[in-house]
Amino acid sequence: MENKKVYTFGNGKAEGNSEMKNLLGGKGANLAEMNLIGVPVPPGFTITTEVCTDYYTYGQEKVKEMLTKDVNAAIHNIEKLTGTKFNDAENPLLLSVRSGARASMPGMMDTILNLGLNDEIVEGLSKKTNNPKFAWDSYRRFIQMYGDVVMEMKPINKEDHDPFEEILDQVKEEKGIKLDSEFTVEDLKDIVGRFKKIVRERTGKDFPTDGYDQLWGGIFAVFGSWMNERAILYRQMEKIPDSWGTAVNIQAMVFGNMGSNSATGVCFSRNAATGENLFNGEYLVDAQGEDVVAGIRTPQEITLEGSRRWAKLAGVSEKDRAAKFPSLEEVMPIVYKELDDIQFKLEDHYRDMQDMEFTIQNGKLWILQTRNGKRTGAAMVKIAMDLLEEGKIDEKAALKRVDPIKLDELLHPVFDNNSLKTAKVIAKGLPASPGAATGQVVFFPDDAEKWHNDGKKIVLVRQETSPEDLAGMAVAEGILTVRGGMTSHAAVVARGMGKCCVSGVGEIKVNYKNRSFEVDGKTYKEGDFISLNGTNGEVYDGKVETKVAEMDNDFTLLMDLAEKYTRLYVRTNADTPRDAAIARKFGAKGIGLCRTEHMFFEGNKIKAMREMILAENSEDRKKALAKILPYQKEDFKGIFTAMAGLPVTVRLLDPPLHEFVPHDEKGQKEMADQLGVSVEKIKQRVDALQEFNPMLGHRGCRLGNTYQEITEMQTRAILSAAVELKKEGVEVFPEIMVPLVGISHEFEMQEKIIRDTAEKVFHEEGMRVDYKVGTMIEIPRATLTAHKIAKTAEFFSFGTNDLTQLTFGYSRDDIGSFLPTYLRKKILKVDPFMTIDQNGVGQLVRLGVQNGRMEKPDLKCGICGEHGGDPESVKFFHRVGLNYVSCSPFRVPIARLAAAQAAIEDK
Amino acid sequence: MENKKVYTFGNGKAEGNSEMKNLLGGKGANLAEMNLIGVPVPPGFTITTEVCTDYYTYGQEKVKEMLTKDVNAAIHNIEKLTGTKFNDAENPLLLSVRSGARASMPGMMDTILNLGLNDEIVEGLSKKTNNPKFAWDSYRRFIQMYGDVVMEMKPINKEDHDPFEEILDQVKEEKGIKLDSEFTVEDLKDIVGRFKKIVRERTGKDFPTDGYDQLWGGIFAVFGSWMNERAILYRQMEKIPDSWGTAVNIQAMVFGNMGSNSATGVCFSRNAATGENLFNGEYLVDAQGEDVVAGIRTPQEITLEGSRRWAKLAGVSEKDRAAKFPSLEEVMPIVYKELDDIQFKLEDHYRDMQDMEFTIQNGKLWILQTRNGKRTGAAMVKIAMDLLEEGKIDEKAALKRVDPIKLDELLHPVFDNNSLKTAKVIAKGLPASPGAATGQVVFFPDDAEKWHNDGKKIVLVRQETSPEDLAGMAVAEGILTVRGGMTSHAAVVARGMGKCCVSGVGEIKVNYKNRSFEVDGKTYKEGDFISLNGTNGEVYDGKVETKVAEMDNDFTLLMDLAEKYTRLYVRTNADTPRDAAIARKFGAKGIGLCRTEHMFFEGNKIKAMREMILAENSEDRKKALAKILPYQKEDFKGIFTAMAGLPVTVRLLDPPLHEFVPHDEKGQKEMADQLGVSVEKIKQRVDALQEFNPMLGHRGCRLGNTYQEITEMQTRAILSAAVELKKEGVEVFPEIMVPLVGISHEFEMQEKIIRDTAEKVFHEEGMRVDYKVGTMIEIPRATLTAHKIAKTAEFFSFGTNDLTQLTFGYSRDDIGSFLPTYLRKKILKVDPFMTIDQNGVGQLVRLGVQNGRMEKPDLKCGICGEHGGDPESVKFFHRVGLNYVSCSPFRVPIARLAAAQAAIEDK
Repeated sequence: MENKKVYTFGNGKAEGNSEMKNLLGGKGANLAEMNLIGVPVPPGFTITTEVCTDYYTYGQEKVKEMLTKDVNAAIHNIEKLTGTKFNDAENPLLLSVRSGARASMPGMMDTILNLGLNDEIVEGLSKKTNNPKFAWDSYRRFIQMYGDVVMEMKPINKEDHDPFEEILDQVKEEKGIKLDSEFTVEDLKDIVGRFKKIVRERTGKDFPTDGYDQLWGGIFAVFGSWMNERAILYRQMEKIPDSWGTAVNIQAMVFGNMGSNSATGVCFSRNAATGENLFNGEYLVDAQGEDVVAGIRTPQEITLEGSRRWAKLAGVSEKDRAAKFPSLEEVMPIVYKELDDIQFKLEDHYRDMQDMEFTIQNGKLWILQTRNGKRTGAAMVKIAMDLLEEGKIDEKAALKRVDPIKLDELLHPVFDNNSLKTAKVIAKGLPASPGAATGQVVFFPDDAEKWHNDGKKIVLVRQETSPEDLAGMAVAEGILTVRGGMTSHAAVVARGMGKCCVSGVGEIKVNYKNRSFEVDGKTYKEGDFISLNGTNGEVYDGKVETKVAEMDNDFTLLMDLAEKYTRLYVRTNADTPRDAAIARKFGAKGIGLCRTEHMFFEGNKIKAMREMILAENSEDRKKALAKILPYQKEDFKGIFTAMAGLPVTVRLLDPPLHEFVPHDEKGQKEMADQLGVSVEKIKQRVDALQEFNPMLGHRGCRLGNTYQEITEMQTRAILSAAVELKKEGVEVFPEIMVPLVGISHEFEMQEKIIRDTAEKVFHEEGMRVDYKVGTMIEIPRATLTAHKIAKTAEFFSFGTNDLTQLTFGYSRDDIGSFLPTYLRKKILKVDPFMTIDQNGVGQLVRLGVQNGRMEKPDLKCGICGEHGGDPESVKFFHRVGLNYVSCSPFRVPIARLAAAQAAIEDK
Repeated sequence: MENKKVYTFGNGKAEGNSEMKNLLGGKGANLAEMNLIGVPVPPGFTITTEVCTDYYTYGQEKVKEMLTKDVNAAIHNIEKLTGTKFNDAENPLLLSVRSGARASMPGMMDTILNLGLNDEIVEGLSKKTNNPKFAWDSYRRFIQMYGDVVMEMKPINKEDHDPFEEILDQVKEEKGIKLDSEFTVEDLKDIVGRFKKIVRERTGKDFPTDGYDQLWGGIFAVFGSWMNERAILYRQMEKIPDSWGTAVNIQAMVFGNMGSNSATGVCFSRNAATGENLFNGEYLVDAQGEDVVAGIRTPQEITLEGSRRWAKLAGVSEKDRAAKFPSLEEVMPIVYKELDDIQFKLEDHYRDMQDMEFTIQNGKLWILQTRNGKRTGAAMVKIAMDLLEEGKIDEKAALKRVDPIKLDELLHPVFDNNSLKTAKVIAKGLPASPGAATGQVVFFPDDAEKWHNDGKKIVLVRQETSPEDLAGMAVAEGILTVRGGMTSHAAVVARGMGKCCVSGVGEIKVNYKNRSFEVDGKTYKEGDFISLNGTNGEVYDGKVETKVAEMDNDFTLLMDLAEKYTRLYVRTNADTPRDAAIARKFGAKGIGLCRTEHMFFEGNKIKAMREMILAENSEDRKKALAKILPYQKEDFKGIFTAMAGLPVTVRLLDPPLHEFVPHDEKGQKEMADQLGVSVEKIKQRVDALQEFNPMLGHRGCRLGNTYQEITEMQTRAILSAAVELKKEGVEVFPEIMVPLVGISHEFEMQEKIIRDTAEKVFHEEGMRVDYKVGTMIEIPRATLTAHKIAKTAEFFSFGTNDLTQLTFGYSRDDIGSFLPTYLRKKILKVDPFMTIDQNGVGQLVRLGVQNGRMEKPDLKCGICGEHGGDPESVKFFHRVGLNYVSCSPFRVPIARLAAAQAAIEDK
């Protein structure tokens, strides 16, 4: 409680600067900075974010006691600089009170304007400005804002009416007018009277008349709004800690509503949607800030060019435009010039695109705020590359300017913003895989294929998905699941496919039998249209238009730059030539995880696989597997060819065998017929395969070590594919990966089977290929005994999905029942399947790398879990010293950028 | 290959001694030692165990090359000492060749006697001993033994006949005689001829005539037998490493079959079954060692007292006894006196009960072997306590003499050995919980209760068991499950109940519908009798008699001694007053794990629990739980009273909610009727609770953190029970344990709920009790972040069952599909659920303790997994620095002894 609490600024001087964002908040720090670089800013002061913490620790009274002296002094400073007096009717000083946190939280917290008015002072203001309508309009605005924010007159439910708005409507009706601007001074006086009355009725208190009482009320309201519901929610979404607190900025009011020589507006130094280097923005004459946002009057473009572009889109003739919607450039050319100079100056100073608020009071320009502008992913890339080319920032800065996760937007189709405005949200789930999808609801994967073949666009709605649904998922525009989290089967597969997916939509009740689902009382049937927003998890009623995002030259430049700085390289998780080709286009340096599960599924393969499962001895198993061999070999040839010249890590069969047998009676009967055995036998075998916890059951190398024929067949398929391609002149670097190793002997046994089979294949083919044998490190015990495993393993690939499951004891298919609660209650800061848990799981990864390299100093280590595409996780993997990360194709650019950023941050 | 390979002994001199067991094997080391202390031993030499390793590394030829010089020299040494000559017809020296590993493996490896005979030498022997029958009998024995062992004439399958035995039978038939002893010299010559013929026919080789060829064949056969199937199996069971190898002992033959002045026998310095301090043993006049074992002639007792006792049991009159079965003490009093002196001397020297083999050749006594005798658990305890009292060993030695695991035998009912001899083994499973059970087969838990109430003894046969089966299990004599391992639900519960259980009996096919099971072609119906041996996993047809084991004074003495030396103390896992009382009797220092699951099950409680599960809001949940509260309070009062004065750790509800709802249609209908809701609603809720991997799902503190009402109710039940008892003057020390914590916040939230509820209870009751709040450490992440959890936790209890599951990624209910293979292939040395995996899981336990104590140096740490009752694990926990282990009641003595041993070994 000893630190400086109040920082003043004004008239080219400031106690703070832009480096002090943590203490003064973003707005406060920039207000100070603007003073220092000669940008006109209404004088004022900032109460630090530390006081916000004090407010929640010690309460209002104590904080007021601590601050009073400093605040009073700061007010006197404003009075001195403006030659006015606060709480004084002669020459009144009015104030604005605004929040301002470290990170921008637009619209989340409270603002009060025109503070310092009462029945007397309004008359003084009226006299001083010779503008009674302005004075009384300001007064009624003040009471309304202050009443809402400080005196809690705000309606609690959205359905309730704002009592102030009701009065305004009443008066309009009484007077037969429609717009606020039509109120006369007398009307406004009447309104002020009614406002004060309803405040008294509703709160039991008179509206405060003393300026200082008003001021403290305002300060506390801002601090209080830090903990309002929407602010908390916003911080959760943006991962902003509650502990940061907000600062309070108090400034002399400047008025854009003093007549035709006054105005207010917002502007951007570049285009926030496209990144185009073009100054742009909107303004309104004779208005205060909230009018621009309110949408009652149409804001006008600031630049002439912008204005003309707008008119073209809006279908307004040049004549009408110039008459009714002229640009600021035309209306106030001198002020415009000053604003244009300032935006140049600010962008130069901050070396980034600026988002500014300004007010023109009687022809005098004031800047109320500047900040680095929010922008779309596309704009982010373009601006960074442009600033680099303009020489405003260097390469490292350019790389750091792009938020890797926002690259996602560039890679997936997106909804058209205008269509979204009118879309009806019917439910909300987890944004499992970004993108936008509109289609007809279908509940069964085989229907999905049929409808797709009929040329229909469909959205697959499932309780959950399983590998058997793959084909249906592949043809869907998007996937909605009732169960499952961000890394559920549906989510992982969808991201792998670059397909939109919303998972865990618990509100929806699916009724497979009736082929319908119910949500919020309404029933959607098969064939009804819905839309999914995989970027925010929203589900919409009906169709919403989408547009395809495209990559451009700036994107390529950015990736080249990333390549230059990265140490960690990026591979992809890909199971098909198509995925491999996409990832390669995005710059993947090979495949880090080629799952082979699907190679046992389609067509004849599943039949042979089931024969294998039914076999009672090694010989019969071998016979059955021999039927699958040629198919798998072809699959590998396709993938190897797509990745020619680059390494491909193939994971041997991982899932438990029961995933390959039908669990319903009909399927079992079909299987029995197909294989010529009794249904009873099929049933018995299926029952025997059933497991209580399949995730912890007979899978991974436990399969290969109990049925070594599988490992032999897969090794044979991989290496004979490699040899055949080598004969054709294709460069192939296969890496065979043993999954789910927990004991060094497990790996050693598999390695021996692989090496022995390899020698056989090479002997038969009369040619060798280079290949490696390594393992997934995904069992906690493997990290703890990695030194033993590294004795024989040639590479490690951390499987952080399973490692997270086991380290936490979570089944990612079952976390839906408690994870949302855990995130809400802050037991977990983030979903550990999205971003690696550095304290726990990360500790094991670090240990695994250290132990492994203790035995084999140059051991190649990578990761191939979902975390490979999460920027924060990628940076952690860089710090841990991994050689590469592997992620789904559409995440490759994200990982590449994050890896480059990690390398830059490392130095 | 540079070390000394051959160690000679004889005539009071020896190159080795009893300390050299690793190199010379147990037998070889003791043969050397006996020479050194003046016990008469036939001279000979030992080839070291290292040579066995060489044998498997370099092969026969190389080993022979390495050894020849030393072996020849050692043979000459025997010749010198005996005044005879090997491979010489004049004055022949015959040899015995015996195996001898570090640890005793009785009967597992090969032995050859009378080596050195051929057609010429047998005549020399005949002449020299003037006993042609002896000479030719020795020759035929030699050919038979050597033929079996070295020339692989042994039948491969049990069903085949031994060709030598067939010839003996033929000759007997031809001559019309019945016993081997009736053969004439001519018969024996005939037999030898036929033996050599069949050897030639079967092997294509002549029987070797050169003594040295015979010797090398014998040596290699012994080395080869180290890797025979039964030896490998035995080592697996006894956890003896393959790498140890066996030594080979070669000695001058002494003959117990030279006439009425010769004999052979085995003896024990104390009773191996009861521990009684009484010299005892059996012998046969005019016989070789194998005759004693063969069971054709009835061996006679060595001591007069023993002989008289035997006669009484066998119903033989004193007159008949003295005439037909006289004791050695009577027949050869001088030799007997010498033998008695030697057994005293050897026991004194080795300070343990000795198991000796001897031969008397023409009135001269030779000791062929001495070793510490194998004994029952009861004998082990008695002998250790007696030796202590006799001053032969000190307290620490006495404690170390008892194998903790063998105490189990003292605590469970056991089969009568005689009955077992005739019992028919129909299947074999895992020895899940020791003991013996005989009863009628029943398949359903409710039937079990009915039959039990009708006064029937039943064996519950299930595919697997679940908590719903508890009542049925409780009334069963024993439990047989088809699925599940040593730590399956059935196994854990059975051990907790001290009830016999055989699990994982995969050969059995249960048909619930027909109420029958099938094994090996035979069908057993409900009501048929079977018997289970929980000590070796055997399942018998029909009834087998059992007897109850009792604890005696020696056991109490042993436990008192353990108490004196132990640092680690022992608690029990107990959920009922009955279990608590048993454990307390066994010396438990409190309850380390009181599970509360069952407190939600019986009668009205399950109804209220289901109401809670159906409830849609906190209020309704509270209402339902309020109905359970009084019952739980009573449960706790019972347990606290049984453990008055000692701490009781109560674990809050752990299992997932779906364990409390019925999964079958009938049960769901009943539940619907009972709760007055639609079946549809029940079904929906049950479906919603279904999880893919319940072990990794919504359970443990994840329940308490999503439904905090459960934690509140349980805390209230625990603490109001404690307060009420305190008012009655009962001392209670409740410790509330939060299960499945993986994140420090999880614990903090639960701790707050518990503390808040406690304050309410204390306020209402007007009285406080001391209580602690701690957590289970059973999630890998908890060990990694234990320092954070220790900030608020007052104690840690490692749940090594779940920790093992997660560290390995094994579901203990599903390991049946691969664990047996893993043990067989030596991927795992032991089942990690039985003995803690020190390298992996143990590393995390160590880390958890270290991290926790880093934050809170005196943090109390214990374990309450199944490992708490495993001696090897207990010793590990001692070394890791835990304060206590907690185990099932019947394991308490075992853990106490292991803990004392650990403390002694520590110094």
